[in-house]
Amino acid sequence: MRSESESVIDGPPMTQQGDGSDRRLVLPEPYLLFLGDTCLVTDLKTAFGLRDWAPEKCIGQYRMSEHTTSIGLADMGFGAALAAGAKSLLIGVASAGGAIPKSWWPHLCSAAHAGLSIISGMHDPLRCVPNLSEIAAESGCSLVDIRHWQPEHSVGTGIRRQGRRLLTVGTDCAIGKKYTALAISKAMGQAGMKATFRATGQTGIMLAGAGVPIDSVISDFVSGAAESLSPDNVSDHWDIIEGQGTLFHPAYAAVSLGLLHGSQPDLIVLCHDHRRKEIDGFPGFLVPTPLEAIDLNLSLARLTNSQVRCAGISLNTSGLDDESRRSLFRSLEDDLGYACFDPIVTGVGKVLEQLA
Amino acid sequence: MRSESESVIDGPPMTQQGDGSDRRLVLPEPYLLFLGDTCLVTDLKTAFGLRDWAPEKCIGQYRMSEHTTSIGLADMGFGAALAAGAKSLLIGVASAGGAIPKSWWPHLCSAAHAGLSIISGMHDPLRCVPNLSEIAAESGCSLVDIRHWQPEHSVGTGIRRQGRRLLTVGTDCAIGKKYTALAISKAMGQAGMKATFRATGQTGIMLAGAGVPIDSVISDFVSGAAESLSPDNVSDHWDIIEGQGTLFHPAYAAVSLGLLHGSQPDLIVLCHDHRRKEIDGFPGFLVPTPLEAIDLNLSLARLTNSQVRCAGISLNTSGLDDESRRSLFRSLEDDLGYACFDPIVTGVGKVLEQLA
Repeated sequence: MRSESESVIDGPPMTQQGDGSDRRLVLPEPYLLFLGDTCLVTDLKTAFGLRDWAPEKCIGQYRMSEHTTSIGLADMGFGAALAAGAKSLLIGVASAGGAIPKSWWPHLCSAAHAGLSIISGMHDPLRCVPNLSEIAAESGCSLVDIRHWQPEHSVGTGIRRQGRRLLTVGTDCAIGKKYTALAISKAMGQAGMKATFRATGQTGIMLAGAGVPIDSVISDFVSGAAESLSPDNVSDHWDIIEGQGTLFHPAYAAVSLGLLHGSQPDLIVLCHDHRRKEIDGFPGFLVPTPLEAIDLNLSLARLTNSQVRCAGISLNTSGLDDESRRSLFRSLEDDLGYACFDPIVTGVGKVLEQLA
Repeated sequence: MRSESESVIDGPPMTQQGDGSDRRLVLPEPYLLFLGDTCLVTDLKTAFGLRDWAPEKCIGQYRMSEHTTSIGLADMGFGAALAAGAKSLLIGVASAGGAIPKSWWPHLCSAAHAGLSIISGMHDPLRCVPNLSEIAAESGCSLVDIRHWQPEHSVGTGIRRQGRRLLTVGTDCAIGKKYTALAISKAMGQAGMKATFRATGQTGIMLAGAGVPIDSVISDFVSGAAESLSPDNVSDHWDIIEGQGTLFHPAYAAVSLGLLHGSQPDLIVLCHDHRRKEIDGFPGFLVPTPLEAIDLNLSLARLTNSQVRCAGISLNTSGLDDESRRSLFRSLEDDLGYACFDPIVTGVGKVLEQLA
């Protein structure tokens, strides 16, 4: 993870749906980041991600005690955060199991009582915290459960939209699809291009302040929800869409396919980790080769965009020295004919060249 | 539609999940069929389907007046139906829009008051009928909204299950996937083979008395729900699984793919209508050729069952005379090498030969 001082989330305001509705989940921002009583850095990846990728949305941090790990933002109480403009207390902890610990309850209730909305990506819905719903209703603030949100239902139409779209796809889950999309959006913004990061998972939605948690959508509406996420736009605007799962996943391929069809990408970027042999957590299911993954994604994407093509392969090469990385890139580029890059080490310039 | 005197739904009792739970929707049966005040035969297709395919589940019919169209069952009041063993009043009407008319309200309330559960496939949930929830709770009967049901969540595992599986797939929606699966199950039962029809849509679930409305499942759990639908079984037992949608559909391909992966079919049967050129309701999206559809389904199905193959093509040839049908079948069989049949006209013998 690297620390950045600018947001990658900016872009021109989104055109609304034809019917005037916005079917995305939109979060009340900016945020006070809730770190709870967490001492494990790894449990704070949501908070670190927000600090690094969307610092302008983060007013400060709230720690239950001095023993809580700090992420380096200003410590603030609820009143001070409100005075500084915060709209929400955002739970920045992603612990295994996704339960909301009892020790947090009084703090969440105090925040709502003070007037902060609560944003949670935990498995436990916020309404399970005793009295919290009533307190939030009294203060007129909202409880936002990203995992449990459902959009207004609309099935896909397949109708082409104006503007351009890039979707990151992968050979597995957790292989760099969000990171790559964020890096591309950021670089495009810095280059003065019109680009908007479109979030499809909970961390991405917290970063962007809006999005569609695509794996929570009822299956009949997956491609429709993906269509809503990147609506009509000006013709030189790019939506950079965070991919999910992989078409080669025995559990999640349906989500990946609905997102692919609804996104109607002009370009895909494949995210791959050359060290991974099996789908994470699914022994016996092999990670496809980059070429297999590109071919299947392009072949299925043509249903809704016959002009789709692949703009390159994003690799995590953190285990390699410079020479080994160059050698890996050269061999993949020679064999496959697609640009290879590591968004952290080499940047995403090879993708941007193809967007001009 | 043809009239049959036997059920096709029988089969050995289903093995439960490893954790002992049944994640299917199970309906209280037998049924009294509610025909409301409907005068249009086409709006009664659910009722006719039940009468024809699952007559042993149908105790009688309930008409709001003599002007309601009859489907030829015994007219019965709620008390008489209960005395005859009925457990549910099943709404046999499928009208456009799926709203529950106000004129039905007192009849539904009376049925619940008398002690009948109510089964509905309408878009309006039954709880929207004033007082109905309270009345049902008092009488201890249930309100079952097939469209709004959610299973216990479980993601797919990709783990192979014992027993064999056949899935009907299609080149479009509404092209014979349910009918073909029912016809194959029925013929297998008559031939003394072990077969169970597995329903994935609301009419199929009403016929079978159980199933998973797969397009209502949250996308993350589609293949997991499909796995639950056809659990481990004895090795010579066949699950004949009702397909949904098509991989070539801009709105619903995700549902089709999740069902395909979770079903892990040993055999697919492709349902096709040679007269249809475009995906129904999606102008510009072409119906694939049978070979394209078979190839893509087999290619994607191999992820969870490397041995999958195609057992034939089910065609609706109702517009053709005998000579034209024979000619169509011969040309498809010569070109593609797959058995062609029309389940209504020629029966499904060509499929059964491949199951022995």
